[in-house]
Amino acid sequence: MPATGDRIEVAASPFPYALDPAHTALVVIDMQRDFVEPRGFGETLGNDLAPAATTVAALIALFREKHWPILHTRESHKADLSDCPPAKRLRACAWRDRHRQVWQGLFYATEVGDILTKRGITHLVPAGVTTEVCVQTSTREANDRGYECLLIEDATASYFPHFKAATLEMIRAHGAIVGWTTPLDALSKAVG
Amino acid sequence: MPATGDRIEVAASPFPYALDPAHTALVVIDMQRDFVEPRGFGETLGNDLAPAATTVAALIALFREKHWPILHTRESHKADLSDCPPAKRLRACAWRDRHRQVWQGLFYATEVGDILTKRGITHLVPAGVTTEVCVQTSTREANDRGYECLLIEDATASYFPHFKAATLEMIRAHGAIVGWTTPLDALSKAVG
Repeated sequence: MPATGDRIEVAASPFPYALDPAHTALVVIDMQRDFVEPRGFGETLGNDLAPAATTVAALIALFREKHWPILHTRESHKADLSDCPPAKRLRACAWRDRHRQVWQGLFYATEVGDILTKRGITHLVPAGVTTEVCVQTSTREANDRGYECLLIEDATASYFPHFKAATLEMIRAHGAIVGWTTPLDALSKAVG
Repeated sequence: MPATGDRIEVAASPFPYALDPAHTALVVIDMQRDFVEPRGFGETLGNDLAPAATTVAALIALFREKHWPILHTRESHKADLSDCPPAKRLRACAWRDRHRQVWQGLFYATEVGDILTKRGITHLVPAGVTTEVCVQTSTREANDRGYECLLIEDATASYFPHFKAATLEMIRAHGAIVGWTTPLDALSKAVG
């Protein structure tokens, strides 16, 4: 493992990502049973997110091994929906449990930005579900706030695979206008 | 024109949009010469945004006729890039002129949220360029903040048409998870 402050070059699209191991955090978005397990909400949409769940688990193990910080989010809601704006109640009401969130973005109206600033985090590795909704919105928020984001391609999934493909392409377009993408294997090789 | 507070039903996808004429603002994003005119940055990307520019002009005329508020954003930067974070300086540095913005989202670190709150705005009609970058990021920010968004399909454009198509589809997926989309003609017929 390199000395603190050294950058690690990770093979990525659209060009190599310079990971800063002393200032990098993993962000695991909405990897919860209702989304990824049989008989959950996810299964009703006809797609299987389990392969991504396996990769997310391996990604978490990698960060634990390195003793790099990991941030988890979870989508849920109060039983009486009292925390849910009326316009959203008709759709899918959501708030984050530990890192409470109004809707799809990780940062807006949460303490996440403060937590990351206090930890000196400048580089984020997003993963989780779904790619084009909460993962995309949160990655766009992070990019606007100056974080360098490396989305792990096989550690994120959508109920609609073409949305996942389009989102990955949009993120890395125009020379990483939102961030970089790479498979877990490339990250593991670079930091291993 | 209906009395203040009455809703106007606009034919839209994935289902009709309930426009509140007393609390609706048009948001025109980045319709600037460098992006849409010959010899500008946009032309170097090989696509012509002019048809969308014509529709945006008609949309602005509609809102002016109704005396409904219009918010414009413009992307630019200081000549010395002193306002630009280092990570972004290597790519395309940007900040908003009147409604200054760090990067792609309309709301983060700007006064836009306060302006809209003071005006009592609850419904936004986004338009402009480019669909999958600043328009998408800003619409996702608006949705997280509780605004009901109706993106005008032919008043937005991308240098990559398949990104525009995917973004419109993502926005209205899952029962308008981010918002609604409709052509200008449908809006004009509903409010005319």
